[in-house]
Amino acid sequence: MKEDVNSIITRLKSKGMQSGPYFEGIATFLKAPYKTDLKDLDIGLIGLPFDLGTTNYPGARLAPREVRNKSKAVGIYNHQTKLIPLDIARVADIGDVPLPNRLNLDKSIKDIEDYYLKLVESNIKPITIGGDHSVTFPILKALGSKEKLAVIQIDAHCDTDSDYYGAKNYHGATFKNAVEAGVIDPNKTVQLGIRGTDDLYWKFSQESGMKVIHIEEYHQLGLERVILTIKEIVGNTPTYVSFDIDSLDPAFAPGTGTPVVGGFSSYEALQILRNLRGLNIIGGDVVEYCPPFDNNGITALVAATVMFEILCLVSENINLKNQK
Amino acid sequence: MKEDVNSIITRLKSKGMQSGPYFEGIATFLKAPYKTDLKDLDIGLIGLPFDLGTTNYPGARLAPREVRNKSKAVGIYNHQTKLIPLDIARVADIGDVPLPNRLNLDKSIKDIEDYYLKLVESNIKPITIGGDHSVTFPILKALGSKEKLAVIQIDAHCDTDSDYYGAKNYHGATFKNAVEAGVIDPNKTVQLGIRGTDDLYWKFSQESGMKVIHIEEYHQLGLERVILTIKEIVGNTPTYVSFDIDSLDPAFAPGTGTPVVGGFSSYEALQILRNLRGLNIIGGDVVEYCPPFDNNGITALVAATVMFEILCLVSENINLKNQK
Amino acid sequence: MKEDVNSIITRLKSKGMQSGPYFEGIATFLKAPYKTDLKDLDIGLIGLPFDLGTTNYPGARLAPREVRNKSKAVGIYNHQTKLIPLDIARVADIGDVPLPNRLNLDKSIKDIEDYYLKLVESNIKPITIGGDHSVTFPILKALGSKEKLAVIQIDAHCDTDSDYYGAKNYHGATFKNAVEAGVIDPNKTVQLGIRGTDDLYWKFSQESGMKVIHIEEYHQLGLERVILTIKEIVGNTPTYVSFDIDSLDPAFAPGTGTPVVGGFSSYEALQILRNLRGLNIIGGDVVEYCPPFDNNGITALVAATVMFEILCLVSENINLKNQK
Amino acid sequence: MKEDVNSIITRLKSKGMQSGPYFEGIATFLKAPYKTDLKDLDIGLIGLPFDLGTTNYPGARLAPREVRNKSKAVGIYNHQTKLIPLDIARVADIGDVPLPNRLNLDKSIKDIEDYYLKLVESNIKPITIGGDHSVTFPILKALGSKEKLAVIQIDAHCDTDSDYYGAKNYHGATFKNAVEAGVIDPNKTVQLGIRGTDDLYWKFSQESGMKVIHIEEYHQLGLERVILTIKEIVGNTPTYVSFDIDSLDPAFAPGTGTPVVGGFSSYEALQILRNLRGLNIIGGDVVEYCPPFDNNGITALVAATVMFEILCLVSENINLKNQK
Amino acid sequence: MKEDVNSIITRLKSKGMQSGPYFEGIATFLKAPYKTDLKDLDIGLIGLPFDLGTTNYPGARLAPREVRNKSKAVGIYNHQTKLIPLDIARVADIGDVPLPNRLNLDKSIKDIEDYYLKLVESNIKPITIGGDHSVTFPILKALGSKEKLAVIQIDAHCDTDSDYYGAKNYHGATFKNAVEAGVIDPNKTVQLGIRGTDDLYWKFSQESGMKVIHIEEYHQLGLERVILTIKEIVGNTPTYVSFDIDSLDPAFAPGTGTPVVGGFSSYEALQILRNLRGLNIIGGDVVEYCPPFDNNGITALVAATVMFEILCLVSENINLKNQK
Amino acid sequence: MKEDVNSIITRLKSKGMQSGPYFEGIATFLKAPYKTDLKDLDIGLIGLPFDLGTTNYPGARLAPREVRNKSKAVGIYNHQTKLIPLDIARVADIGDVPLPNRLNLDKSIKDIEDYYLKLVESNIKPITIGGDHSVTFPILKALGSKEKLAVIQIDAHCDTDSDYYGAKNYHGATFKNAVEAGVIDPNKTVQLGIRGTDDLYWKFSQESGMKVIHIEEYHQLGLERVILTIKEIVGNTPTYVSFDIDSLDPAFAPGTGTPVVGGFSSYEALQILRNLRGLNIIGGDVVEYCPPFDNNGITALVAATVMFEILCLVSENINLKNQK
Repeated sequence: MKEDVNSIITRLKSKGMQSGPYFEGIATFLKAPYKTDLKDLDIGLIGLPFDLGTTNYPGARLAPREVRNKSKAVGIYNHQTKLIPLDIARVADIGDVPLPNRLNLDKSIKDIEDYYLKLVESNIKPITIGGDHSVTFPILKALGSKEKLAVIQIDAHCDTDSDYYGAKNYHGATFKNAVEAGVIDPNKTVQLGIRGTDDLYWKFSQESGMKVIHIEEYHQLGLERVILTIKEIVGNTPTYVSFDIDSLDPAFAPGTGTPVVGGFSSYEALQILRNLRGLNIIGGDVVEYCPPFDNNGITALVAATVMFEILCLVSENINLKNQK
Repeated sequence: MKEDVNSIITRLKSKGMQSGPYFEGIATFLKAPYKTDLKDLDIGLIGLPFDLGTTNYPGARLAPREVRNKSKAVGIYNHQTKLIPLDIARVADIGDVPLPNRLNLDKSIKDIEDYYLKLVESNIKPITIGGDHSVTFPILKALGSKEKLAVIQIDAHCDTDSDYYGAKNYHGATFKNAVEAGVIDPNKTVQLGIRGTDDLYWKFSQESGMKVIHIEEYHQLGLERVILTIKEIVGNTPTYVSFDIDSLDPAFAPGTGTPVVGGFSSYEALQILRNLRGLNIIGGDVVEYCPPFDNNGITALVAATVMFEILCLVSENINLKNQK
Repeated sequence: MKEDVNSIITRLKSKGMQSGPYFEGIATFLKAPYKTDLKDLDIGLIGLPFDLGTTNYPGARLAPREVRNKSKAVGIYNHQTKLIPLDIARVADIGDVPLPNRLNLDKSIKDIEDYYLKLVESNIKPITIGGDHSVTFPILKALGSKEKLAVIQIDAHCDTDSDYYGAKNYHGATFKNAVEAGVIDPNKTVQLGIRGTDDLYWKFSQESGMKVIHIEEYHQLGLERVILTIKEIVGNTPTYVSFDIDSLDPAFAPGTGTPVVGGFSSYEALQILRNLRGLNIIGGDVVEYCPPFDNNGITALVAATVMFEILCLVSENINLKNQK
Repeated sequence: MKEDVNSIITRLKSKGMQSGPYFEGIATFLKAPYKTDLKDLDIGLIGLPFDLGTTNYPGARLAPREVRNKSKAVGIYNHQTKLIPLDIARVADIGDVPLPNRLNLDKSIKDIEDYYLKLVESNIKPITIGGDHSVTFPILKALGSKEKLAVIQIDAHCDTDSDYYGAKNYHGATFKNAVEAGVIDPNKTVQLGIRGTDDLYWKFSQESGMKVIHIEEYHQLGLERVILTIKEIVGNTPTYVSFDIDSLDPAFAPGTGTPVVGGFSSYEALQILRNLRGLNIIGGDVVEYCPPFDNNGITALVAATVMFEILCLVSENINLKNQK
Repeated sequence: MKEDVNSIITRLKSKGMQSGPYFEGIATFLKAPYKTDLKDLDIGLIGLPFDLGTTNYPGARLAPREVRNKSKAVGIYNHQTKLIPLDIARVADIGDVPLPNRLNLDKSIKDIEDYYLKLVESNIKPITIGGDHSVTFPILKALGSKEKLAVIQIDAHCDTDSDYYGAKNYHGATFKNAVEAGVIDPNKTVQLGIRGTDDLYWKFSQESGMKVIHIEEYHQLGLERVILTIKEIVGNTPTYVSFDIDSLDPAFAPGTGTPVVGGFSSYEALQILRNLRGLNIIGGDVVEYCPPFDNNGITALVAATVMFEILCLVSENINLKNQK
Repeated sequence: MKEDVNSIITRLKSKGMQSGPYFEGIATFLKAPYKTDLKDLDIGLIGLPFDLGTTNYPGARLAPREVRNKSKAVGIYNHQTKLIPLDIARVADIGDVPLPNRLNLDKSIKDIEDYYLKLVESNIKPITIGGDHSVTFPILKALGSKEKLAVIQIDAHCDTDSDYYGAKNYHGATFKNAVEAGVIDPNKTVQLGIRGTDDLYWKFSQESGMKVIHIEEYHQLGLERVILTIKEIVGNTPTYVSFDIDSLDPAFAPGTGTPVVGGFSSYEALQILRNLRGLNIIGGDVVEYCPPFDNNGITALVAATVMFEILCLVSENINLKNQK
C-alpha cells in the first residue's frame, strides 16, 4: 500500500462511494454508487428479489433490501489480499432486476435470463443477491450462453433434483437444469459443503460428473487440499461462484429457508473464498438469505461480507486481465 | 345449560375431542378430531397452506400449522351465545388441501376449486385457514357453483383490483374474480373495515354494487347499525364469511403480509362476528395470517379464536336448519 | 401541590429512592429503597418468583426480576390523583419471598402463607409481583386470617375451577380455594374482565355469589356504572386487588401464559384502578406476567405501571386512615 | 376524482414516484423521488438520524432508514380527504441531514439549525423523521426564525423540563428551549396525549401558557371538542406538527425509547391528524421511533403512515395557498 | 444403494411416512406414522412434555410439539452411514407420555416409569424428546429394570448433584438417582462435554466411577480417541444415549434453560453420534430443549436432527441383531 | 480441593455471596455482594453504562444491568484452574460509575478517569462491564497514571483510528489515545482477533509498535504459540485485559454494535483467557455488549462468563502476590 490511506479514501468518495455511519443515507450494496445506466462499468451489484422457486419457508425476496441495509457495516479493504475492489474496478449498484411477471415462476426465469444477457452484452460482470437458488439457472444461461462455465457452488444441497410439485425451474434443480441447458460443464463443477439427509435426491451430481465434497470430506481433507482440488477441476475456465447461505451452519446464518445443521462457520467460508484468488472468476451470487428468519441481521451481515469477498475475486480477476 | 358441564365434557371426549394443556399431543384445529375421510360430517376445518398469490411479504403458507398449534388455547364454549359447536354439529379437522401443483399459482387455484367441489358434494360446510386471500376465489367458485353467494368480507383491503404483474388469480383481485365468475352477488357483498391508502384501486367494488364500509364509517355508525346494514344486505342468502386477519390493527395482528394501521381491535372483531348470528352462514375462512411476522403467536391465537367464532355461526346455522 | 417539586424530589432522594436513567444501578421495584428488615414500613413491594401452579406456558417465575428492571421507566407522581406514594407512606422493596421448597407446589404454598403472616404481624401491606395466580391463595390466607376480605379481581378467567391433573393449589382454582378456606367473602368478590371460551368451568363463581362482570358487560355498562357496582359490593371491607395481566388484551400484554384475545386496553385498566380510590384497599398483586413471551418488555412496563397504581391506592388508603 | 385512476398513476410514475412491491428497489420516503438538490421543490422529506439527546434507551438514530424501508407499504391516496399529496405538490426525499459533528450534541443541534435555515431560504416545507425529540428544537429555530410558530405536539411527555445531567439541548427540554429562544408561541402551543408519572417536571408548560391536554381529557372531551380547542388556539398562525411516536400506546408503537402505557391507538392518532385539515400547517416531524425495540416493523409502519398524514396536511395547505 | 431411490420413497410413502413441504399437514416426529397402539413396532418416537424438574428457566414442556413441527425439515437418509432408518425398522410416533399428575413432580416421575415399563414389555425401543433432564431417570428405571445399562451422556452438566430445594427427582440429580436405583452402571457411564463453573457439585460422578470427559479434554484428545475411550467403557452392554441440548454451545442451541458457553458445535455433536455405530444402543433421548428461548427454531432443528441420528443408531442396532 | 465443597459453599454464603436459581432476588455481578463503600476490598466489579462514544448501533449503556441479570447463570468455580475467585480475594459489586454529565462525551470521559483514580488510591483492582470501548481510555489513564501498562486487547478492531466526526474520545481511537497519553506501552500491547475490512484505519498500531495478531494468524499459529508470543511481549509488566465482545463471531455474540463476521468461538475465547494465568493481570473490562441486538441473552451470558474468567486471572494474581 504505497498510496496514503487518506488519499485513497478521498478518491473513493470522489467516485461517489458513500461512507459514514452504518445507518446513514440511502442504502446501496457495499457503498458502491447507484447507477441506472450500464455504461463504463466493470461489475454490477444486483438485487434479485424473487423467491417463487422456493419449496419450504419463503421470504428470500426480501433479501436485497436487507443486504443493502447492512452493507455499510462492511468496509472497503481486504487486509488478507490487500485489495480495495471499489478502487481497482468500476463497480456500481445497478438496482434490482426488473420482474414484470413476478407472480409467474417460468416467465420470471425468462425475464431474468434476458436481463443478464444485456449485462453480458455490456461486458458487465454480475454479482447478485438473490432470491432463492432458482435465480442462478437463468443467470448461468445468460453468462454461459457462449462458453460453458465452470461452477464453484458452496451449499448444503446439490440442487440437482428433478421436477417438484409440477415445477421444473425451482431452487432444487438449478444445476441439473444448467447442465441440461448446456451452459455449465458438470466436469468443471464443484459442490462444496453438501450435507444433511436429502442425499438420495442428488444422484444427478454423481452421474453427470460433478465433484461433490461433503462437509465431512472438507473437514477430513482440510482447506488446503480442498482448494487444490477445486483449482485442478476448474482450471482457467471462466468460473461462476454460487454461494448458498445455507452452506453456513444455522448458528451463523439462521436466516434461510431450508436450514441444515452441521455447516460451515463464517470463518471457514471466508477462508474458502479468499483462497479462490487466481481463478478466472467472472461472476457470482449469494442466494437463499431469507430475512424473516434472521436474528438481528447477523445473516444479512454475513451475506454482505460474502458479497464483498466475491467482489474482491471478480475485481482482481478483471484487474489481472487488464494488466496483461 | 341444563345438562351438567362434566357430562358435556365427558361426551366430547368420547367423540374424540382432545383436551388437556395447550402443548400436549398432536395438534388439530380447535380440538376437533382429525379425520381423513369425509363421511358423517357437517363441518370440515381445513388448512390451505398456500401463498403464491401474495404480492408483498410471503409466509401465509405457514399459517395452518401455527393455528393448529395455538388451537388448544381456545376453549369449547361461547359464553355469549351459550353454544358448544363441537357438540351441536359433527366437526372434524380434515387436514390440508392437497396441492399437487403447489409451485404453480393457476393450477393450484384449480386444484383448490376441485377439492372444495368434493366437499360441496358431501354437503360439508368448510371453514378454512389460508393461505393468502387468493385461496378464497376457488373456494367461492366451488361453494357458489349452484347459487350465487352473499359475502361478508372483513378486511383492510377490498381485493377488487385488476391483474398484477401478469397474474389474475392473486390475492388483490379475489372478489372481482368471484363476481366475474358469477359465484357471488356483488349486491349482497359487504366489505367491512376497509382503510389505508390504496382506495384508488378498488373502484370495482363501488361500480359492481358492493357495500363498502370503511373503518371510519364503522366507528361513526357504531356496531349496531353496521350489523343492521349487513343483515339487510345479505338477508337469508347463503352467506360466506371471509375474515382477512389484516382487518385487525397490526397491534392485535402483527403477523400478516400487507399490514395497515388503524384497524379493528380483537374485541371489536369478535363482537362483529358474534352479532352475525341468525344469518345463513354456510362457510368461512381466516386468511393472510403470516407466521414469520407474528410476535409470540398472538396473531395465531386471534386467528384460532376467529375460526372458533365462525364455527359457532356455521354450527348454529346447521343446527337451526336441522331443527326445522 | 404546594411544596416545590425540586424540594420533593430532593426529599425522596434523601429517603433513598433511586432516580436517574432507566438502566442505571441496581434495580428495585418502583425506585423504592431495598430493605431486608421489616421495621418502620407501611408497604412492602415483594417479588414472588414461582410458577409451579401454572397449567400451560410456564415462565411467570421470571417476572419479578423483569418488573424490577422496567421499574425505573415508571415515575413517582400520579397526575390524576396528585399523589406521590413514596412520599406519603413508608415503602420498600423487601426482596423475594424465600422459597426453600420451590420445586414443591404444596409446600411452597404453605411457605408463602407463612411469609405473609409475618408481614401481617408487622402491619405491612403487601403488593406482590407474581408468579402465577396460584400465589394469591396463600397471600389471601394470610391477609384474611382474621377477617374475611373483599376482592376485586381483574382477570380474563374466574379461577374458580376444581382440581386439575391431581393438583388443588394451582392457578385455576385460587378463588374457590380462598372461599373454601374462609378467607374471602364471595359476596364481596368482583371478577371483572372475564371472557373467552372456558366459562363452563367457573360455575362456582355464580353459585358462591361472586359478581362476575364479563368484558362485554363492561363495555355495555361503561366505566362509571361498573365502578359504582364494585363500590356497592365491596363497601368499606378491607379489600384486596388481584390484577391478572391476562385481563389485558394480548396486544397490550403478550407476555402471559394463558392469553385470551378481546381484553382490556392498558388505558381502560388504568382507569379502572384509578377509580377505586376511596375504597379500603389493603394490598394487591400483579400476577401471570410471563417474560419469555413478552415483546421488548411492553408487558413488564404495564405490569410495573399497574403495580404503581395499586401502590397509589394502598398508600392513599393508609394515609387517609392515619389522618383520622 | 374526475381524472381516471390509471392516468393519475401513470403521471406519478412519470414524475419518478416508485411503485411496485414493498421490498423492491432503492427505498425512499413515501415513494417520493430522491433528490440531492433543492430546486423546484415544495416539500422535503428528510431523515435526521441522531439520538444523542436521548436519556434512556437509544436507537432513534436508526429510524430514517427503517421508515424508508416500510414506506412502500403506504399507498399514495388518502381516501378520507381524497388527496394524493405527491400529485398536488412537488415532493422529494432529500436524504439525511448532514451531521459533520454527529458525536457532539451541541454542535449537531447547531448543524441541524443551519441545514433547516437553508430549506427556509429555498421555501421548502420540511417533514422530518427523527431522531429523538431533541432534533425538533433546532428545526423550530430555523422555521420560526422570522415569525413565532404555533405548535401542535402529540406526545406522552411535555418535554418542557430543565437541564439534565449537564445537557440543555436534550429531548426532554425541547419545547422549553423553543419558547426561550422565542421561536414558538406558548399560547399557541397545544400538547396532546400527555400522561404517565412524570408530570411533576413539566410545570413550565402550565406556567408559560401552553395548552396541555392529558390523555384522560382527550377521552372525556372526545375528538370533536379537542379539535375545536386546537383550532381556536392555533388559529391561522403558521403551525408545526410534532408527532412523538410515544404518544401511541406501546401496543401500537413498541419501538420507542421512553414508552408510557395508556396512550393513543393508531386509529385515534390518524383521526386527530386528519381533522387538522384547514390549519396552516407548514411542516412537521415524527420523532422517537427507535427501531431496536420495534416488533417486526409495526412501529415503522405507523411512523411512515403518520408521515403520510402530515404530508397530506402540508401539501393541501400549500395547494390552498396556491389557489388563492 | 442398489434399490432405486424412487422405489424406496414410494415404499416409505406406502408405509405411511409423510413427505412434502416442511409446513404441510399434521406434524409427527421425523415423518414417522402416528400410531396409538403399540403393536408391530420396533422403535417408538415419544414426546415427554414435562419440566417440573427444572431449576432455572422453564419451558422444556413445550419441546415435543416444536420438534414435531421442525421434523419435516429433516430428511430420511443418512449419507454417511447409508441408512434409511424408517426403512430398516418399524418406527412410529406414538404420541406423548400420558401425565395424569402433570402438576406433581414425584407422581409424574412414577407415571413416566410405568409408561416406559409397558414399552419394555412390548419390546419397543424408545427415543424420547423431553422435557427437562429429570425425565431420563424414570426412563432408565424402566429400561434398566432387568439389566444395568451403560450410558453415554452428552451434556454440559454431570447431573449427579444431591437434593435441591427439597426435591430429589429434579434434573440436576438424574444420573446419581439412576446409579442409586441400581439401573445404570457408573463404571459404564460416560459424561461427555462437561464444562462450566458448577463442577464442585458433581463429585458423585468421580466417586462412583463415571468417566467424565470435559469439553477441554475432548478438544485435546480429538474425536477418534474419545470414541475409542467410549467404546472401551461401554463395550457391548445395552447402552442408552442421553443428549442434553445444552451440550451444544448457546450459539448452536440457544433454546435451553441452563445454557453454558463454550460447548460443542452442531457438526461436532453429529460426528460424535455417528461414530457410535456398532454399539448396542437400545434407546435415547434429547432433553432440555426449551422453545421459549429458541431463535427462529434453530434449536428445534438441531434437536430433530439429533433425534434422527439416535434413530439411525438404534435402528441399525436392531437390524444387526435381526440379521444374526 | 482439600476442603469439603459444602463447607466452601457455606463459607461463601456467610460472606454474602448470593446463591439460588438464576432469576431470584436482587441481581449483582457474579453473585458478589453489593457494596457501596470501598473498604476492605481487593477487586471491584463495576458497571459503566455509557455509550456516547459509539459510532454505529448504540445501546451498550444497557449492558451492565443485563450482565448482572445473567450473572447467576455463571457458577463460582473454575474447573480448569481449580479456583474459586470469590474465596481467594475480597470481591464486591460496587455498582455503576456515577456519570453526572452522562449526556456529554468529553466530560464523562473525565468523570470516569476520576472515579478510577479513587479505586487506584484504594488499591482496588477494577473489572468493568462497559459501555462502548471509549470507556477503556479513561480507565487506562487512571490505572496507568504511575506506570505504563501492558495491554492484552481481544477485539475485532484495533481501535487506533484518529478523530471521527469531530470527536477524539470515541470508541475507535481508545488505544491510540492511551498511547498518546503515555499510559500504555505500545511495545507491550497485543491486539488479538483483528479482522474485517477496516484495516486501513489502524496503521497507528503498526507504526507505534503494537503486536497485531489477525484472526487468520491466530488460526495459523494455534493457541499455544499465540500465548507464548503474548507472554514474551507483556512479560511481568502490570497488564490490563480489554475484551471487546465483538472479538467473538456474531453467531456467539450477536449483541454488539459493530459486528464483524469470522470471529472467535466462545470456546476459543475462554481458552485464550485461561491461558493468561501467571501474567501480572491487574484489571480488565468487557465492552461493547449491546443488549438491544442480543438474542435471548446469549451475549449477556458470554459477557458474564468472560468477566468471570478475568476475575479468576486477577484474583489469582493478587493471591500469588500475597503469598510472596
